Amino acid sequence: MDEARTGEDSSAPRRWVRHASRHAGGLLIFQPRWDLMENPRTGERMERLVLETRDWVNVVALTEARELVVVRQYRFGTEAVTIEIPGGVIDQDESPLDAARRELREESGFTSQNWVELGAVTPNPAFHDNRCHHFLARGVQRTHPQELDNGEDIMVDLVSLERVRELVASGAIDHSLVLSALARVLDLRVAALSGSEGP
Amino acid sequence: MDEARTGEDSSAPRRWVRHASRHAGGLLIFQPRWDLMENPRTGERMERLVLETRDWVNVVALTEARELVVVRQYRFGTEAVTIEIPGGVIDQDESPLDAARRELREESGFTSQNWVELGAVTPNPAFHDNRCHHFLARGVQRTHPQELDNGEDIMVDLVSLERVRELVASGAIDHSLVLSALARVLDLRVAALSGSEGP
Repeated sequence: MDEARTGEDSSAPRRWVRHASRHAGGLLIFQPRWDLMENPRTGERMERLVLETRDWVNVVALTEARELVVVRQYRFGTEAVTIEIPGGVIDQDESPLDAARRELREESGFTSQNWVELGAVTPNPAFHDNRCHHFLARGVQRTHPQELDNGEDIMVDLVSLERVRELVASGAIDHSLVLSALARVLDLRVAALSGSEGP
Repeated sequence: MDEARTGEDSSAPRRWVRHASRHAGGLLIFQPRWDLMENPRTGERMERLVLETRDWVNVVALTEARELVVVRQYRFGTEAVTIEIPGGVIDQDESPLDAARRELREESGFTSQNWVELGAVTPNPAFHDNRCHHFLARGVQRTHPQELDNGEDIMVDLVSLERVRELVASGAIDHSLVLSALARVLDLRVAALSGSEGP
């Protein structure tokens, strides 16, 4: 497959025509938008939902001792306490890096002078319009008090990278955006598939 | 950190109390639910949104020649043609494995006799209640015609694993759930961080 084929030529899926678009009532961080879309394959029109939202960031933060900063919090979707990495929504007029610095400091109290961009992913291109920017912060130190907002109750821990791999393998770390960030820093292959033979 | 600490003891974040819950109008594959939640840290009550939805599956499908089956389609959220792996929503009374077999066959025409469960992730535990089950299918062959529904316009390609890694590194493959599946089969570390020194 040639990457250029995702562009204009006839072997690529065509853009759908948007015939109409209307915004519905807000859903906290989401602004629902109904688009009247035309399938270029069939000509059929159908309403499709986009949940507009700002870009997000998250941070793989490692201490000098190569321990990962994790945050534990109760999550309302899965009704469970999760183990994640610090992250959040980028504020208006804030750069992704500034948001990453702020979220790491606010949620965990850790800061760093050593930042690396790990690229951005799409949380779900089917119905979100945003990206999540991944960062690596090395040599982090606990320099600040935690600053939680009213919608947060977060506990912070340090976990060895070996233990992080175990928590991923066991499913204890299972947030897709945490995994896509960690995968840029750690080899997360399932043990049985990571031999020299590969998959 | 002790994994048990995510359970009952006092060092773990507490469950929030849900004082009320009401469903709003449906949003296609989502059923919005508003929960009145109480923050155990502050006692404050606030409405939080859960977008209930069925579990999803996706499939890392490899041919005998170790090429990956990818699907390209126009995505309404990001308004772009993406490169993804086959996947979709699990039907009622369907097992995750059966859904994975069906979605691979319907979207790509490929089938396999060799399936491995790669575990499940949470697409976003903050506001979704579902999981996405990852599968590996080895030795896949094109045995069936594509069966697209009216909401789909999908093209299929085979990509070498080396090229897959390049597409991840360049951001051409950027769907978080595709990345969390691929990370269980391929080492996706950023080249500069994958040396013997690690991060």
